[in-house]
Amino acid sequence: MENDFKKNLPHYIEQLTNSYHANSISEKISLNLPDKEVIIEIISELEILLFPQHSGNKKMDETTEKYIVGNLMQIVYQKLKKQLKLAFLYEYDRKNQKLMHSADERAESVCMEFFEQLPEIYRYLSMDVQAAFDGDPAAESKDQIVFSYPCITAISIHRMAHVFYRLGVPIIPRIMSEYAHSKTGIDIHPGATIGKYFFIDHGTGVVIGETTMIGDHVKIYQGVTLGALSTRNASKLRNTKRHPTIEDNVTIYSGASVLGGETVIGRNSTIGGSAFITESVPPNSMVSVRRNELNIE
Amino acid sequence: MENDFKKNLPHYIEQLTNSYHANSISEKISLNLPDKEVIIEIISELEILLFPQHSGNKKMDETTEKYIVGNLMQIVYQKLKKQLKLAFLYEYDRKNQKLMHSADERAESVCMEFFEQLPEIYRYLSMDVQAAFDGDPAAESKDQIVFSYPCITAISIHRMAHVFYRLGVPIIPRIMSEYAHSKTGIDIHPGATIGKYFFIDHGTGVVIGETTMIGDHVKIYQGVTLGALSTRNASKLRNTKRHPTIEDNVTIYSGASVLGGETVIGRNSTIGGSAFITESVPPNSMVSVRRNELNIE
Amino acid sequence: MENDFKKNLPHYIEQLTNSYHANSISEKISLNLPDKEVIIEIISELEILLFPQHSGNKKMDETTEKYIVGNLMQIVYQKLKKQLKLAFLYEYDRKNQKLMHSADERAESVCMEFFEQLPEIYRYLSMDVQAAFDGDPAAESKDQIVFSYPCITAISIHRMAHVFYRLGVPIIPRIMSEYAHSKTGIDIHPGATIGKYFFIDHGTGVVIGETTMIGDHVKIYQGVTLGALSTRNASKLRNTKRHPTIEDNVTIYSGASVLGGETVIGRNSTIGGSAFITESVPPNSMVSVRRNELNIE
Amino acid sequence: MENDFKKNLPHYIEQLTNSYHANSISEKISLNLPDKEVIIEIISELEILLFPQHSGNKKMDETTEKYIVGNLMQIVYQKLKKQLKLAFLYEYDRKNQKLMHSADERAESVCMEFFEQLPEIYRYLSMDVQAAFDGDPAAESKDQIVFSYPCITAISIHRMAHVFYRLGVPIIPRIMSEYAHSKTGIDIHPGATIGKYFFIDHGTGVVIGETTMIGDHVKIYQGVTLGALSTRNASKLRNTKRHPTIEDNVTIYSGASVLGGETVIGRNSTIGGSAFITESVPPNSMVSVRRNELNIE
Amino acid sequence: MENDFKKNLPHYIEQLTNSYHANSISEKISLNLPDKEVIIEIISELEILLFPQHSGNKKMDETTEKYIVGNLMQIVYQKLKKQLKLAFLYEYDRKNQKLMHSADERAESVCMEFFEQLPEIYRYLSMDVQAAFDGDPAAESKDQIVFSYPCITAISIHRMAHVFYRLGVPIIPRIMSEYAHSKTGIDIHPGATIGKYFFIDHGTGVVIGETTMIGDHVKIYQGVTLGALSTRNASKLRNTKRHPTIEDNVTIYSGASVLGGETVIGRNSTIGGSAFITESVPPNSMVSVRRNELNIE
Amino acid sequence: MENDFKKNLPHYIEQLTNSYHANSISEKISLNLPDKEVIIEIISELEILLFPQHSGNKKMDETTEKYIVGNLMQIVYQKLKKQLKLAFLYEYDRKNQKLMHSADERAESVCMEFFEQLPEIYRYLSMDVQAAFDGDPAAESKDQIVFSYPCITAISIHRMAHVFYRLGVPIIPRIMSEYAHSKTGIDIHPGATIGKYFFIDHGTGVVIGETTMIGDHVKIYQGVTLGALSTRNASKLRNTKRHPTIEDNVTIYSGASVLGGETVIGRNSTIGGSAFITESVPPNSMVSVRRNELNIE
Repeated sequence: MENDFKKNLPHYIEQLTNSYHANSISEKISLNLPDKEVIIEIISELEILLFPQHSGNKKMDETTEKYIVGNLMQIVYQKLKKQLKLAFLYEYDRKNQKLMHSADERAESVCMEFFEQLPEIYRYLSMDVQAAFDGDPAAESKDQIVFSYPCITAISIHRMAHVFYRLGVPIIPRIMSEYAHSKTGIDIHPGATIGKYFFIDHGTGVVIGETTMIGDHVKIYQGVTLGALSTRNASKLRNTKRHPTIEDNVTIYSGASVLGGETVIGRNSTIGGSAFITESVPPNSMVSVRRNELNIE
Repeated sequence: MENDFKKNLPHYIEQLTNSYHANSISEKISLNLPDKEVIIEIISELEILLFPQHSGNKKMDETTEKYIVGNLMQIVYQKLKKQLKLAFLYEYDRKNQKLMHSADERAESVCMEFFEQLPEIYRYLSMDVQAAFDGDPAAESKDQIVFSYPCITAISIHRMAHVFYRLGVPIIPRIMSEYAHSKTGIDIHPGATIGKYFFIDHGTGVVIGETTMIGDHVKIYQGVTLGALSTRNASKLRNTKRHPTIEDNVTIYSGASVLGGETVIGRNSTIGGSAFITESVPPNSMVSVRRNELNIE
Repeated sequence: MENDFKKNLPHYIEQLTNSYHANSISEKISLNLPDKEVIIEIISELEILLFPQHSGNKKMDETTEKYIVGNLMQIVYQKLKKQLKLAFLYEYDRKNQKLMHSADERAESVCMEFFEQLPEIYRYLSMDVQAAFDGDPAAESKDQIVFSYPCITAISIHRMAHVFYRLGVPIIPRIMSEYAHSKTGIDIHPGATIGKYFFIDHGTGVVIGETTMIGDHVKIYQGVTLGALSTRNASKLRNTKRHPTIEDNVTIYSGASVLGGETVIGRNSTIGGSAFITESVPPNSMVSVRRNELNIE
Repeated sequence: MENDFKKNLPHYIEQLTNSYHANSISEKISLNLPDKEVIIEIISELEILLFPQHSGNKKMDETTEKYIVGNLMQIVYQKLKKQLKLAFLYEYDRKNQKLMHSADERAESVCMEFFEQLPEIYRYLSMDVQAAFDGDPAAESKDQIVFSYPCITAISIHRMAHVFYRLGVPIIPRIMSEYAHSKTGIDIHPGATIGKYFFIDHGTGVVIGETTMIGDHVKIYQGVTLGALSTRNASKLRNTKRHPTIEDNVTIYSGASVLGGETVIGRNSTIGGSAFITESVPPNSMVSVRRNELNIE
Repeated sequence: MENDFKKNLPHYIEQLTNSYHANSISEKISLNLPDKEVIIEIISELEILLFPQHSGNKKMDETTEKYIVGNLMQIVYQKLKKQLKLAFLYEYDRKNQKLMHSADERAESVCMEFFEQLPEIYRYLSMDVQAAFDGDPAAESKDQIVFSYPCITAISIHRMAHVFYRLGVPIIPRIMSEYAHSKTGIDIHPGATIGKYFFIDHGTGVVIGETTMIGDHVKIYQGVTLGALSTRNASKLRNTKRHPTIEDNVTIYSGASVLGGETVIGRNSTIGGSAFITESVPPNSMVSVRRNELNIE
Repeated sequence: MENDFKKNLPHYIEQLTNSYHANSISEKISLNLPDKEVIIEIISELEILLFPQHSGNKKMDETTEKYIVGNLMQIVYQKLKKQLKLAFLYEYDRKNQKLMHSADERAESVCMEFFEQLPEIYRYLSMDVQAAFDGDPAAESKDQIVFSYPCITAISIHRMAHVFYRLGVPIIPRIMSEYAHSKTGIDIHPGATIGKYFFIDHGTGVVIGETTMIGDHVKIYQGVTLGALSTRNASKLRNTKRHPTIEDNVTIYSGASVLGGETVIGRNSTIGGSAFITESVPPNSMVSVRRNELNIE
């Protein structure tokens, strides 16, 4: 019997490679694609840079931190610069741009900007951890939050991916955000702007779209969508503001949807669970759903 | 103190192994169980066969693709055939069937059928990628979609698992679909039939039941359930059509539920977010939820 | 160009380590933090102890099980005791407790209690598997359920984490439950009390809060929240009953929310999909949502 | 340029596979070859069974040793039996024997004989360690000898390989002895018979041939050859005694050669460094080389 | 106490890096050094290409060999070309050569020449295996020889390293030969020329110098040195013939030394064990050592 | 058949563990044994500290070296201190010493002394590399020597092991030297004292005993023994000078033996190949062997 498969192997190979060519996915055959596995390694190393005490480097102290951090930074830099360069070359190639000679320079300059911002990202994350601690009665300690709250994973990666997004890096920011989505169920597009002291509780099913603007001290729950109203004619919508604005001190309970690029939730408002909002809400509002009557038999 | 645990170790062992025997889970003690870790390896290798350019084999070109694909195919074949054989033996054993001598033949013939269909699966996936590109304003390029859209992971694995399901393979299709569910939050039963040019946006929380029929050019959002009406008396319901039919060109927005085996969403219809549908909808319908009034204080 | 990054490296290092110190996350600098990666190893080993036939130890039989189980138990014990001790030391340190000398004893006694209860956990799990088999028409066999149902992963880990929670172990139970959440999308706080013959179908988006009480023979679906009414003033709410009680034989369909510490769903009740419940429901109730009218154009 | 290699790749492949067929090494194409890497894994596991305290299982004590040893034994058994079966099938195949149905039985019976003898091998090794301790002024302790004396590695593996050799196992004993040779520079053919309390100091370059007989309390140094006189007409010499006999209490210093199947070194003799001996030496002899005069200018 | 080391860490770092600069080993600081670990990976992959049946690819047959070989070849090519290029750049850099632009071309052309010769290398190795089988009464089968004779490892790697040596590749050939030396105790300089049907028995301690010429059907034993007479004024001796010539059909027994660039061992000669030869020996000679008298007391 | 082994498994386990107890190797049952695998990791990391440019850290430059070296040093320190402590505890335990509380202090102080000396070790090694370059006509460059000369491996490890030996560390120095022996065939006891600019060519079979004293600018070849005259009554010989003294500028050719604690090879002497020397030789001597006559037939 085994001979049957073996006999057909050349046929199977030819059919599959023919199918590659007949149904090409890549718009242009390019060798300059970043390597997803390396990007995931980089994410893990950046998470260690952000939370070294919670990553097994328990012996790090004021004498050794300089060397541990410095060594890890230069390792990340080597890998990151190479992936950034591939991403820029991919884009130049796809767009038939002539600037290919500057991919190396752009990669270097993105690296520098990124590491310049890393301490500020850390500062924001320390506030996010505080927000989780203040906002969840089940939290024992801030260390526990770093160890086990999915929002910390999601926000850490988002805050880093957002830097790359703003600097115009292709492909990589989205690989980063999807990695976080896969681990946490929280889907934050790297384009979203998020203020400080941000907390997502539980988080599974949260969707935050590309052009969302979120202020400071915002708290949202599982299943919340900050989305677009419609995506018909997707290509025409590229680069327009399609997602809402959430001002400071807003809380949005589980399962609520806030949709549309012109929808603004005014500061200090609370949006009740399962609310479906497609128009702006003034500051200091308390929006609750007038519930369906329940049949109780 | 350590002695205390050690002293009790024989007791703990005996208690646990006794509990195994007293509360047996397997209906019949059988050595013929597939190996979940190997099946996950196989999935990863099949994903490389489907998207080699996006899996680190960047140097693959028209000269080398034959060898890379051929080598990987024969590796997958060796592993897959063995796991298929174990799955068939498991089933024969569980059902006290006498046919055990043919497990090898069935495994071989499933392998052959599967590799015969792989090029067509690739063709469908190339259309699914196009659907994502056309349907999401945030998509930069088709390569980005392959790298980072969870729906591509979920649909790729589903389209392969469905082949095994249709060929009557026990256990393995469900391990495959649950692997995709764990990574993406999208839960598609391997029995579901899905047409071409299919797109799921975001995807977390999507559930698509075993007997669902989905046409071409369908687009669904996160949190959509295509489910059964009730599962009381589960055993009687086995092998009946319990899940809906979605015709061509239907869009279903986030959080909507379409339930029941006789429920049909007619072609060219749009189902609004959070709609709860248990009866058929005619073609060209636009179903929207008359929203609860919102209390805004 | 490369010189630019390198020239700035000392600056980047100083900025980041300064940011660590200026925005300290840990309440007290402590070397006594458990190691998350080791805890995840322990979880994997405990899953093998619970389902050895489904974990690649296919050759285990009545002669060898004693040695396989015994060897794995003593490996788990070595690792677990060390992590427990670190967790207790962390807590002593954080609370300036003087009892540090007894961390070793507490770790030993928690190990003993845990292994004492493991056979009973197995017994409960065998009933949970039965519940899944009886409750899902798509289930082929109980072996398939162990291999591929996310609820089995979530409940197995919960039942173990709950033992540690009840014994007052810091940090570790939550790392365990979040590991299960990340893999399954099911978020069960380790404090929740869950009776026997429990089944969660699909599961993505389920949230079960810390002080939830669930009886026997309960079945819930994807997207169900058993949560708190509000978490304002989180710190005052610590250690109060904030989550509902679900009595025996209750079924709760997808997307329903049951909120509040005094809310009780009486025995033999059924809660319809998307119901939003903040007050108690008497036994034997059938609660269904009076659906929004649908606009069908 | 890269195209040049790629263009030629099909040519290189064809040339090499043609060369395989034109210059076949295996006498008969057989799928039944043992797997060298697995055999090396087995050796490592057997070394742990022999010296568990020196292999990182430091916590093994009288309670746990039963489980650690039992678990490792059944792992070794699974792997070893499979490799033994492949070796027997290889031999049946090569010799066109009809008995292929009994390879499984022979493998099982060799396993049983081997594990039956393992305690006695341990007993001999404990005497070999003592011999090293008594014989080397540089030895600090017996634990140090187990950790770092190459003779212990070589003799341990020899004593095990010799059991397989005597039971007629093809291929595997020689893979084992060559593994020891590669690590230690000591080349003992698995056919050699070696008595108790045996010590090789330093060891590099020692060669002990297939039909050598060594008594008890023998000590040899680096570079000693116990070899054949000539290997012309190798095939005629197969299965004849070609290597010497060394009686009890003999010491042979570095670089000495003792050659020939009828050469006997009588008991209590000492052979000086660089001696070249092709004839028997009576008991109680002290053989020293009358040294070349040295020119000292 | 721990503080003591930590306090001094900056001092230790400064001292060591100062020592790097004060005692520089590399003649010129170059980033273009090959990577030893990658070269060792390449060697392992080349060994699989030469002996695929003995490397775990047991299922390779006439249908699959093309894909297995082709895939491995293109993997080796990617790695090898990169290492070759680094080696050439290193040399250009060290010698201040201006040709740096051609390192890529040289690497490509060496790859092509190497793969062109690989089938012939295989043909020679098949004869070497035959020589071992014919020359060692202890050999069971040619498969056993491939699995476990150190000479096959040493000669395989030598025959490949020699191709690179002849093509002027820096550094890499010697890393290859030293890798073989470390595994087998056989030290063959990659410059040595070795004819067909070559056998080294046991092998530990064999040294074959850079300018040695060895004919066909030569057999040597452990501890044989084919070396230079003196290495005073080493730098003047570079590129002169310093090592002997061994004509066809010569056997050299263990421990013999043949030294000097003008020393020729004529065809069909036999050199006895421990012979020390610094002058030529005519064809058909039988050289034996007139042994020292032995004192036997 | 399989049942046979399984049936006997408890018997095999009992026999082997009984044999452990009846033939105990360790003089005292102690849990405080160092871990050989960790020590080998430490050796590899120390080799990177000594030759970072040749270990894959190619991008190390004057900016990054501080962080790479600093990070690696603190990693080595953590592991090394723990192993040193285990070694001291082992010794205290074995000798029933009461000082167990100071093992930690001794480990710390040995670490500090070791890292204090590392720069000087590097300085010596840079001279050893120069000696190899000056002494071997086949050497292409000093980088090649670091990459591929076994003497560099052997001497690097020796110079480090010797520091630990002098500081009275049990067990660990010998594990280090035997690791080097296994890789290179060069067996240097960690007690031997070796001057600067030292070169061993080829090296296989070299033995250098514990109390050997070697001056500066010494060169030796493969198969040289610097050994003891006799080891009868080994225990009485402990801590006496049993091995020779080699003064400055001595060359010893292959296969020579220099034996005895009072034997001195005077400065500027040359010892011919295979010489057997048991008495002192004055300075400036040229010792050659008056060769055996050769029978040439």
